[in-house]
Amino acid sequence: MIECIPNFSTSDPAILTALVRVIDQVAGVQVLDTHVDSDHNRSVITFVGDTTSIGEAAFCVVAEAAKQIDMQAHCGQHPRIGATDVLPFVPFGAATMEQCVTLARAVGQRIGEELAIPVFLYGAAATTPERYELPNVRQGEYEGLRDTIAHDPARSPDYGPAQLGSAGATAVGARMPLIAYNIYLTTSDVRIARRIAKAVRGSSGGLRGVRALGLLVDGRAQVSMNLTDYKTTPLHRVVDMVVREAAAYGVMISESELVGLIPEDALIDAACFYLHLHTMDTQQILERRISTQGP
Amino acid sequence: MIECIPNFSTSDPAILTALVRVIDQVAGVQVLDTHVDSDHNRSVITFVGDTTSIGEAAFCVVAEAAKQIDMQAHCGQHPRIGATDVLPFVPFGAATMEQCVTLARAVGQRIGEELAIPVFLYGAAATTPERYELPNVRQGEYEGLRDTIAHDPARSPDYGPAQLGSAGATAVGARMPLIAYNIYLTTSDVRIARRIAKAVRGSSGGLRGVRALGLLVDGRAQVSMNLTDYKTTPLHRVVDMVVREAAAYGVMISESELVGLIPEDALIDAACFYLHLHTMDTQQILERRISTQGP
Repeated sequence: MIECIPNFSTSDPAILTALVRVIDQVAGVQVLDTHVDSDHNRSVITFVGDTTSIGEAAFCVVAEAAKQIDMQAHCGQHPRIGATDVLPFVPFGAATMEQCVTLARAVGQRIGEELAIPVFLYGAAATTPERYELPNVRQGEYEGLRDTIAHDPARSPDYGPAQLGSAGATAVGARMPLIAYNIYLTTSDVRIARRIAKAVRGSSGGLRGVRALGLLVDGRAQVSMNLTDYKTTPLHRVVDMVVREAAAYGVMISESELVGLIPEDALIDAACFYLHLHTMDTQQILERRISTQGP
Repeated sequence: MIECIPNFSTSDPAILTALVRVIDQVAGVQVLDTHVDSDHNRSVITFVGDTTSIGEAAFCVVAEAAKQIDMQAHCGQHPRIGATDVLPFVPFGAATMEQCVTLARAVGQRIGEELAIPVFLYGAAATTPERYELPNVRQGEYEGLRDTIAHDPARSPDYGPAQLGSAGATAVGARMPLIAYNIYLTTSDVRIARRIAKAVRGSSGGLRGVRALGLLVDGRAQVSMNLTDYKTTPLHRVVDMVVREAAAYGVMISESELVGLIPEDALIDAACFYLHLHTMDTQQILERRISTQGP
């Protein structure tokens, strides 16, 4: 079983409905979640399936997004390079990262050749170390990439033409499960959110498994984060660091939000940390005991 | 489905093995957990089953414990009145509290009549308001009850003789799921644990859904607690109150431990509180999404 979590540069519900319909038409896949983020003018669909059908569904939804979304008319706070901005494949259950890499490259090649959309492989599917990190791939965003892709060899796509149309480019990759976590601060001063994001994210000296941006969302400063490996950089450490950094500005957390889905263990780990349950066995969770042994 | 969680006044592994064997011999029940607590000289077995078979298994294990455990030779830190000290029935899944009350009374009657063990109904199965709370039923412990049961009408059992043998008495009841949670402090001064327990427990003005004792376990002060209704008195509020009270004595928490099992929602609720996820939908948990919709 493999999970696919494409991010689209739209928050139009009618377009989302059309994209979900395209995925649903492929046998063997199941849409688990859709998340429309009007503040970022961005949407996320999560679906799962076996290796064959999920590749087909991913290709079809990228084709549909290219028809429906015009990057020349898009604006939004979140960095983006294309109609289907990112297309990650994530191992789930018995699936391996190697299977996801193979799949990402095959689907990426199809998108490049059949849809004429420039494709950049990232994460575990990257072909150069620089492209491992998504922010490097998205540098300059749609507008910047449009102006450099043809003549800067460093921006040359892995598949497809070195030229951007209205669908932009797509980053296709393989990665571990990702937690998209936004923290709202008790301030409207976006500079504080930006300073906290800089302190927390790995690229500027913070926590290795964290990408972070400071944004102004609906009049509130927000630290918008992706946790790229929650097993080695756990949620509680990230949240506590944001609390500590915010306190230095006299600011607190008003609330957090999850974008999309979270693996259950990430929440259980946080509970055990805060409750000082350092040696809890997850088999002490009643529901797990019953489901593993049957009754 | 009903859960049964008898507590026995022993920490002898051979006796525990015999008790588990008796339960396993009844068709339709499944032992989920056994917990031997040498510090308290006390053990807990958790099993589940349908209403008919779980009553039979409960009766059989009480009979076996009466044979194997001699209360006249028992000592341990935890309050106790009998070989099978408490025998609670807890609704699980589609089962109701009413079913558990009916079951507790039927099994209690059998224990009283067939085994000649005094039975006190408690919790939702109690016949007087005083006996709703387990500490009231266990007042004076085995030794105190032995000396008063015959002539104090307030100590007269609901079933069985008004006389204590080597198996002592058993509190049989129906209740909501209970979380048994011990917190170790960074001190060996048991008086601090006792003061914190007094501050936290409902009976002395603290949190309504908490029973608490201060104990000295293995040279460490411990606040030993039962959360009787984790949905209205959540784990995080209890732990935070212990942290706050302990700080007044210059003491911190070194670790916590769960005795037996915990409903998964109790941990998810704690994670959401500490992570400021005030509006998380539990359907954002990946595993729940897949299990409820199939793939």
